[in-house]
Amino acid sequence: MAAFDSLWTEILDVGRDGDSGGYRRFAWSTADATLREWFVGAATTRGMDVEEDRNGNLWAWWLPPGWTGDPRGAFVTGSHLDSVPDGGAFDGPLGVVSAFVAVDIVRERGIVPRVPVAVTAFSDEEGARFGVACVGSRLATGSLDPDAARRLTDIDGTTLAEAMTRAGRDPQHIGVDPGLAERVGVFVELHVEQGRALDLVDKPIAVASTIWPHGRWRFTFGGEANHAGTTRLVDRHDPMLAFATTVHAARSAARDHEAVATFGKILTAPNGTNAIPSEVRAWLDARAADEAALTAMVDLIRARAAEAAAGDGITLEVTAESVTPIVEFPEAPRTRLRRALAHLGDIPVLPTQAGHDAGILASTVPTAMLFVRNPTGISHSPEEFATLEDCRTGAAVLADVMVDWTTTDHGEST
Amino acid sequence: MAAFDSLWTEILDVGRDGDSGGYRRFAWSTADATLREWFVGAATTRGMDVEEDRNGNLWAWWLPPGWTGDPRGAFVTGSHLDSVPDGGAFDGPLGVVSAFVAVDIVRERGIVPRVPVAVTAFSDEEGARFGVACVGSRLATGSLDPDAARRLTDIDGTTLAEAMTRAGRDPQHIGVDPGLAERVGVFVELHVEQGRALDLVDKPIAVASTIWPHGRWRFTFGGEANHAGTTRLVDRHDPMLAFATTVHAARSAARDHEAVATFGKILTAPNGTNAIPSEVRAWLDARAADEAALTAMVDLIRARAAEAAAGDGITLEVTAESVTPIVEFPEAPRTRLRRALAHLGDIPVLPTQAGHDAGILASTVPTAMLFVRNPTGISHSPEEFATLEDCRTGAAVLADVMVDWTTTDHGEST
Repeated sequence: MAAFDSLWTEILDVGRDGDSGGYRRFAWSTADATLREWFVGAATTRGMDVEEDRNGNLWAWWLPPGWTGDPRGAFVTGSHLDSVPDGGAFDGPLGVVSAFVAVDIVRERGIVPRVPVAVTAFSDEEGARFGVACVGSRLATGSLDPDAARRLTDIDGTTLAEAMTRAGRDPQHIGVDPGLAERVGVFVELHVEQGRALDLVDKPIAVASTIWPHGRWRFTFGGEANHAGTTRLVDRHDPMLAFATTVHAARSAARDHEAVATFGKILTAPNGTNAIPSEVRAWLDARAADEAALTAMVDLIRARAAEAAAGDGITLEVTAESVTPIVEFPEAPRTRLRRALAHLGDIPVLPTQAGHDAGILASTVPTAMLFVRNPTGISHSPEEFATLEDCRTGAAVLADVMVDWTTTDHGEST
Repeated sequence: MAAFDSLWTEILDVGRDGDSGGYRRFAWSTADATLREWFVGAATTRGMDVEEDRNGNLWAWWLPPGWTGDPRGAFVTGSHLDSVPDGGAFDGPLGVVSAFVAVDIVRERGIVPRVPVAVTAFSDEEGARFGVACVGSRLATGSLDPDAARRLTDIDGTTLAEAMTRAGRDPQHIGVDPGLAERVGVFVELHVEQGRALDLVDKPIAVASTIWPHGRWRFTFGGEANHAGTTRLVDRHDPMLAFATTVHAARSAARDHEAVATFGKILTAPNGTNAIPSEVRAWLDARAADEAALTAMVDLIRARAAEAAAGDGITLEVTAESVTPIVEFPEAPRTRLRRALAHLGDIPVLPTQAGHDAGILASTVPTAMLFVRNPTGISHSPEEFATLEDCRTGAAVLADVMVDWTTTDHGEST
């Protein structure tokens, strides 16, 4: 199955940082444009028509012979091409490459689908640049307001609207995709696993059960800039101390709730060695098995932060930038997937703590996810890894699912 | 004394950030170039010849009539023009503007100096861009190795050598100034006070006694980047926690040593909301009344950091970027200054916790400092402030000192 290997290697150099070895494929960046060109090329080579929807999501269409009119009830598979800062090669692109390769496999078998097939790449899934994840799928499903999206701002002060304009898109067009429910019969997203569950049971592939509820909260600790040498300790309003307290409060609250809470992004102003900061902004990423636990945990972290801020005479503002409820992938497509893969034996069914476009689209269309084993569990890092053998297996499994879905009748009952 | 006001206002807009109202006058930046042009203009207007020495320090010369050959035994006064990020208007430029105004005042009085007078602006005093303070004066006195200086790197990866080259300078020329000791009879630096001591005793001017020993230490906490959602707490090597512990350790150690310790600058990689950091780099600014206290305090902070790092399975590297021993300003010039200002009544003599070029030059030439009252004590902040009345007084006082020094004999005994 050299098809996977050759397509996979085509994008391995795009947006890769020479020092870290990680990827910096941010929305509407040069690397993003290169990956979009690659997508169009991969589709065109396969005789698939490409459309970019109003939100920048890419769709490559394989229509049944004689199909007329707009696609409907399609088997849609894909993922995203953008990355976190210094991310790995697999998170996102594996699902897009596997989708094209699955099309190749199905065609090589001489199978003709009875419903349209689409390969997709959703725009700005990681939210690395503008701070909100899954912008493309959120806009399409109406869960992100277009005005709010246009105002999102990156670290250099560029808004999403400006970035889209510079990339030759019209940000006035973004918004809900009213045809989504009719067009998509099912969306199946293949993704590298981001934990070690498959490695622990020695299986290459899993099907998703749920996505943990999760969100991002921006904590802004506002102090008073002053000289780090000449300002007496008692005269200080240094926001770094309350931030430091909050880092430990988050870890402790996560432990208590059997959840996870992380401060991975921090911006300090003025960020001078000899200046007490005027402000520390830090982003809390928090996830829990259910929504009650998530709310309780974040409330606890916020309370501890407020207490520390009050003690130091500084201000605290906490803003929920995005909060995603629990996603329970529907029973019907999941059962269908497991049936299509019965020849592989028992397929593990796993929850995931990571957000995905499939989780966003689940509000509007039937969705399912396949995971490919990650031997170390490391993700969002240059160390992220899956074996080529498992990746090939993933593409083959996706082809099996595509054949099953597009060649047999399926109603609500399956 | 409108002379001060008009010269002062000429540079108030240079390098000022529209949002914060603070200054971003970093070494070898566009703002720095504009200030250098202003310096040349102010000198030229006064008929003073300008030279920029091999290290980028500016010297504007007023030579006694008939003086031939190189200047020696000069009365040198000035400060620096660069700023910390979002710094105030006064720290640095006040000393340069006051120096030019003092020349004006002395000339208006019809006084002709018997030794050369120079107004100076030392290069890159704050170290805001390349992380080492007083680069210009350290190079001149030989306390900073030229090779090490050339390799200093800013946040964008630009080296000092590259920045100087882009600014049209030759970084191969930097290094010790062998003529410094002969050229400079005394260096008097006028500076805004960076505490509230003068406000508390209701005096406009002070003379410096000592500069606290101080330094910058870079703490690099090295962890393992991973997905903030999917990585179990027990599998994490998150460097943010040990950093947070160290922030509190620094505050606690400073309290115990009646000193100050600050983490004001932090760089997190990859700095993604949903990524556990691979690395947190943070800079400790620490200062104490004597060197034993400083060493003990920093050792304690380092030990607490190492303990936290070991507990989380992360690495810690601590690098002293610059450590400046205590500076005791010499008795002779200080006595001379107080004598020249006897008409103002008792002049307070104050230690300072801030580093200054005068402290660096003290290793090679006689130096003294004058402080101008800062009513709030706030410095390194857009809020930094001194009244125009006190600033005018400062320039007049500096003129008195200039007259005294340049028109009367003075030997080692005074």
